[in-house]
Amino acid sequence: MTIEGRDDGATGGRIRLGMVGGGQGAFIGGVHRMAARLDDQFALLAGALSADPDRARASAADLGLAPERSYGDFAEMARAEAARADGIEAVAVVTPNHLHCTVARAFLEAGIAVICDKPLAADLQDALDLADMVVRAGVPFFVTYNYSGYPMVRQAREMVAAGAIGELRVVQVEYPQDWLTEPLEATGQKQADWRTDPARAGAGCIGDIGTHAFHLAGFVTGLQPESLCADLTTFVAGRRVDDNVHVLLRYPTGARGMLWSSQVAPGNENALRLRVYGSRGGLEWAQEQPNHLWFTPFGQPTRLITRAGVGAGPAAARVTRIPAGHPEGYIEGFATLYAEVGRILRARRAGEGPPPEALCPGIEDGLRGVAFIDAALRSSRAGSAWVSL
Amino acid sequence: MTIEGRDDGATGGRIRLGMVGGGQGAFIGGVHRMAARLDDQFALLAGALSADPDRARASAADLGLAPERSYGDFAEMARAEAARADGIEAVAVVTPNHLHCTVARAFLEAGIAVICDKPLAADLQDALDLADMVVRAGVPFFVTYNYSGYPMVRQAREMVAAGAIGELRVVQVEYPQDWLTEPLEATGQKQADWRTDPARAGAGCIGDIGTHAFHLAGFVTGLQPESLCADLTTFVAGRRVDDNVHVLLRYPTGARGMLWSSQVAPGNENALRLRVYGSRGGLEWAQEQPNHLWFTPFGQPTRLITRAGVGAGPAAARVTRIPAGHPEGYIEGFATLYAEVGRILRARRAGEGPPPEALCPGIEDGLRGVAFIDAALRSSRAGSAWVSL
Amino acid sequence: MTIEGRDDGATGGRIRLGMVGGGQGAFIGGVHRMAARLDDQFALLAGALSADPDRARASAADLGLAPERSYGDFAEMARAEAARADGIEAVAVVTPNHLHCTVARAFLEAGIAVICDKPLAADLQDALDLADMVVRAGVPFFVTYNYSGYPMVRQAREMVAAGAIGELRVVQVEYPQDWLTEPLEATGQKQADWRTDPARAGAGCIGDIGTHAFHLAGFVTGLQPESLCADLTTFVAGRRVDDNVHVLLRYPTGARGMLWSSQVAPGNENALRLRVYGSRGGLEWAQEQPNHLWFTPFGQPTRLITRAGVGAGPAAARVTRIPAGHPEGYIEGFATLYAEVGRILRARRAGEGPPPEALCPGIEDGLRGVAFIDAALRSSRAGSAWVSL
Amino acid sequence: MTIEGRDDGATGGRIRLGMVGGGQGAFIGGVHRMAARLDDQFALLAGALSADPDRARASAADLGLAPERSYGDFAEMARAEAARADGIEAVAVVTPNHLHCTVARAFLEAGIAVICDKPLAADLQDALDLADMVVRAGVPFFVTYNYSGYPMVRQAREMVAAGAIGELRVVQVEYPQDWLTEPLEATGQKQADWRTDPARAGAGCIGDIGTHAFHLAGFVTGLQPESLCADLTTFVAGRRVDDNVHVLLRYPTGARGMLWSSQVAPGNENALRLRVYGSRGGLEWAQEQPNHLWFTPFGQPTRLITRAGVGAGPAAARVTRIPAGHPEGYIEGFATLYAEVGRILRARRAGEGPPPEALCPGIEDGLRGVAFIDAALRSSRAGSAWVSL
Repeated sequence: MTIEGRDDGATGGRIRLGMVGGGQGAFIGGVHRMAARLDDQFALLAGALSADPDRARASAADLGLAPERSYGDFAEMARAEAARADGIEAVAVVTPNHLHCTVARAFLEAGIAVICDKPLAADLQDALDLADMVVRAGVPFFVTYNYSGYPMVRQAREMVAAGAIGELRVVQVEYPQDWLTEPLEATGQKQADWRTDPARAGAGCIGDIGTHAFHLAGFVTGLQPESLCADLTTFVAGRRVDDNVHVLLRYPTGARGMLWSSQVAPGNENALRLRVYGSRGGLEWAQEQPNHLWFTPFGQPTRLITRAGVGAGPAAARVTRIPAGHPEGYIEGFATLYAEVGRILRARRAGEGPPPEALCPGIEDGLRGVAFIDAALRSSRAGSAWVSL
Repeated sequence: MTIEGRDDGATGGRIRLGMVGGGQGAFIGGVHRMAARLDDQFALLAGALSADPDRARASAADLGLAPERSYGDFAEMARAEAARADGIEAVAVVTPNHLHCTVARAFLEAGIAVICDKPLAADLQDALDLADMVVRAGVPFFVTYNYSGYPMVRQAREMVAAGAIGELRVVQVEYPQDWLTEPLEATGQKQADWRTDPARAGAGCIGDIGTHAFHLAGFVTGLQPESLCADLTTFVAGRRVDDNVHVLLRYPTGARGMLWSSQVAPGNENALRLRVYGSRGGLEWAQEQPNHLWFTPFGQPTRLITRAGVGAGPAAARVTRIPAGHPEGYIEGFATLYAEVGRILRARRAGEGPPPEALCPGIEDGLRGVAFIDAALRSSRAGSAWVSL
Repeated sequence: MTIEGRDDGATGGRIRLGMVGGGQGAFIGGVHRMAARLDDQFALLAGALSADPDRARASAADLGLAPERSYGDFAEMARAEAARADGIEAVAVVTPNHLHCTVARAFLEAGIAVICDKPLAADLQDALDLADMVVRAGVPFFVTYNYSGYPMVRQAREMVAAGAIGELRVVQVEYPQDWLTEPLEATGQKQADWRTDPARAGAGCIGDIGTHAFHLAGFVTGLQPESLCADLTTFVAGRRVDDNVHVLLRYPTGARGMLWSSQVAPGNENALRLRVYGSRGGLEWAQEQPNHLWFTPFGQPTRLITRAGVGAGPAAARVTRIPAGHPEGYIEGFATLYAEVGRILRARRAGEGPPPEALCPGIEDGLRGVAFIDAALRSSRAGSAWVSL
Repeated sequence: MTIEGRDDGATGGRIRLGMVGGGQGAFIGGVHRMAARLDDQFALLAGALSADPDRARASAADLGLAPERSYGDFAEMARAEAARADGIEAVAVVTPNHLHCTVARAFLEAGIAVICDKPLAADLQDALDLADMVVRAGVPFFVTYNYSGYPMVRQAREMVAAGAIGELRVVQVEYPQDWLTEPLEATGQKQADWRTDPARAGAGCIGDIGTHAFHLAGFVTGLQPESLCADLTTFVAGRRVDDNVHVLLRYPTGARGMLWSSQVAPGNENALRLRVYGSRGGLEWAQEQPNHLWFTPFGQPTRLITRAGVGAGPAAARVTRIPAGHPEGYIEGFATLYAEVGRILRARRAGEGPPPEALCPGIEDGLRGVAFIDAALRSSRAGSAWVSL
């Protein structure tokens, strides 16, 4: 129960937040807002919520934004907010993927911290350019690889780092879904429409969820593969992006991995699952039952470590809100990233560096994610040859 | 994704909320605050957060309350807030059980709606008196039997009502925990201390969690038992309240039930679980995996209904926030009760009656819960004889 | 892999076995035969397989019995086999319940060991008389409470005896099925027909499966309740026996228990499940995943003990056949009882007493099972009053 | 309950069986014997149970073989048995892998049917030669890919063939174990010793369990991949064979697959698991809970099909022995292959062809398995390039 509790008054202590994208009919924008709200560290004050002016206005009204801080354009928003004494300190970028970089740049230039949805960019060069700019600007930048906010993912990371499973050997990570089993995009469904559009999404399954699986594996193991062999497939006739992804991974340490993500696997909703095995033990975690972590020290029975239970360590404890057995879920994990960002931005306000324990994926994670997508596409186009990352 | 979305400006549209209890070190107060915040329908503006003035002040500061609205006394708070034009419209009562009634009365007299934690009272007569007063006062009153906020519990209730399992025959409900396996209260742990104190808690396991199990069964089945036989036991030496509860239930329809709750069952965190069986099918639900509901239409394979999945109906859909496979948890379920209260109170503002679909346990549920506790204690004291409810 | 291995030649080393009941269309007879065969310690040589002479003959032919050892009548079989030099050494009694005693007596009188299906008798007086006779006759007698043959049930028993869960506090045992949700007996289905006939079955659900649950609890805990309160119900119109059983149990040590068995719980096939909790830990086991035992030492994470896995002790090891992860099932557990009987009967051949480690329920277990049924019926008829066992 | 029941007298109706390998200390020989015994269709009459004469003799005595039919040499056994009027009709070959072919040849030449453990051979050329010989000899030949005997695997196969999941898209198959996480072979443990010896095993994990996974996928889907990319790794220092296997698969239909097998994945015992996804649905099955099959028709809730339950079809029903909810396990699945072989060999006795419904992997399956191992080794040695199968 570490998270709740804000330490100063008025809108006051709260971080002043803006949002680009996330208007009516969007999915992830609403999640960002709930996440920002849960621990009461942010106040949403401004937005450019939709490219459609009517929708933008209506969405802003829904959210109680002051009309003058509902912008028709993200560039205008960045300028105007930067000019206000009470302007936003951070902006959540929750547009389709191809706009992430452009929007992010505008706010970075204005000195406003960026909380960017994944993937960072629809293109590796864009991502590299953005990374350069982040470094030059010296402005905090975060990428919401939100599964890294789950307490038991933190627990797994802490255990791997502490040597609980010994030297890493095998990584099995997967993220299957089934919602695109049929050509849903043909019906005009908003999410399916942009997520299967190469121009707006950049890639398909690999970018939408493969990159989450990839990040999770790296976050927990602390290792990055050096090469991969990817077989990206499009099963649904007429679809313009991949909808199934098979990847073999090789790590510089000699470890090996497999990554599967799919949007055409009936019976799977958001079945992200990570298993890591080392010379001394194994760990298993699944997003659909996120409060459980299975740990087998080799030669001993498998044990169930639960969030806030007796087997959980400090990394989980500091991001847990309620007692063991009362499930925390997706929104809470997402909120933990916001809580971490809140801590970092309050330190920044105070002229301090980020608190060492605060843990939120940043530009480097974002860049690695795009590099992974890029490598997978290169491999697949080359007949699923091995390529370097 | 029905819940998010607020419809008017400023603190504005939000319901003005106060809180009694829930200062630093408390558990359930923080949960109420997160629940109230999640869907952005409430603004917490006033509190009497602790009987200890220093803790009350510090807690209020933590929460960003205006200093003049941090009260040292709930009665003063009720009077003062009732007198303000911008006074609170509702108060959350999150004190130990024995204070629920007294606090609730003060706010009801002031015309302020009450959101009361369960159980309603530590004594049946108090509960009856309070119920009378609620009726006379005509002020909205809610009891946070929070498990009724889980979408799949709503789904189960809807299915039973629609006849999916036919005529109800058997109810198996249980709520085991293990945190009081040893005499934790002897260590001074705050939660254990008051929850095992007859003066503050009224009863032990039966009141703390047995009543949740009882409510859940009634909420889903729509039936109330007419008699019971209870065997309440105290296993830990020196404990002053029951820590294990076995109850047989008989319903006027001829249905039968079993209720078990325990705080001394090692390996159980908050393992609330309901199974109901009828002439045509069965349903199973467990709080620790709350997004799943198992349904067996007799003569067909068991099927898994998931929150927001294809098998879920409108009762679940209207209280779901995110897609299937992304788990919602305990806080979300709790928040759903707040969202329902928010709907009802906004209708009240508008001079309208409660929206018919809004579903939050009220005074009748609270009263039934206390009557259940009372009957179980009577039965157990009479050598576990059968008693009427 | 302790079980396989027979130590002498011909039919030779094998125990010469007969069977009463178990002809074509029967269920449990076939199970007994597979169980007897699995570890190759028995040779089935004689039978009175059906009261219907044609079915008896045909069944015997199916099983390759010599025609002269296929008897039309169990009494004749007992006499004739006792007179043969190569007569059977043991008989499996797998008739409907009401015949168990009469058949058993005939073989006991002939000095032939009896392996009797449960329940021992349809009536307590019959069971008591039979128990007397067993003692007087000095002939081995076994009752196939077969769930006691599962390795992880043995493991649980060993752990409880060793104090792994401390002093026993709570027993939760249940055995729900759903096959009698509708009036299957009205269709003439053979199993439903006799199992719901008071004259042949003695009682309904309580005798058919409640007694299994009761035995399992006693086998694992080593304790017998001293009193109970039972609510037996018949939900299906026209059914002549109980089809749902709720029982509260009190143990002389102060421990408490709950037993539920049902044949009208849709979604349950043979969902026998035992949970026991003590002052230091808890254990859970379920028949439908019998190779797993969940153990929580209080204050430590729950661990999964698997048959033949690293956490399993000698009691499981001596009755396990194959490596961990390769499931053993119902037939294997049943076969373990036969293997134990085989060990005991070979010792008897050699003029020795039963090997101390051989563990198979006997007359005392059988008698306790009937006493439990009797007490449950008495309680239920008395309005579910508490009665002594 | 289709399996039990034998139709003629004496040793009589039973198939006369011999065994090569499987002496004391072996694992799989004992499994074959239990499997042969369970349904009472075989009589084990002869053996060359060990290359060590003392062990051979002692093992034969354990099993009650007539001393003159305990052979010191398999070639001698083949000749002698072929010469006897009551000689064996079939032989089970349960030696280490490198001997399978040589032994099989000897019996084929003698006209004796062969039941050969997998993999067929330690080398592709040997397998091809043997396949030629089987065809020329016209003698029945079986390979015990035993997981194809599980009823729910049969059910899955039947459903795929009937179009329940539409056109196949994705195959995910895995078989992780953990028993070789440390260099167990260094301790002299018998199983680890030969299974990690290239000379006797041919390959490591790929041959021992990868081939099982491969067969299972083909058995259920009815499809064979045309190319693969394999990354075989040895993680334990000093080990002479692979202990982890990652394979990508491509099918001529455009379907894609992933195969993982490992012997160094702590927490996995025999966690064989198959998931197949098609244009209309998905299926999941896991060996450690083999009585369950999960089926999702796209657009409907996932349902649980159980062995002998209402959702199971004729393919499962004909190989099931006991009611739903009473688990059948590994031995039963293995026994089903023996039961199928028994049916085929009895038809052969009668001069008939194999019954059309009898289903047991044969020489073609064996050959494909070795071709898979060969391709995986070729790919891996070529830097994990894609190779044709």
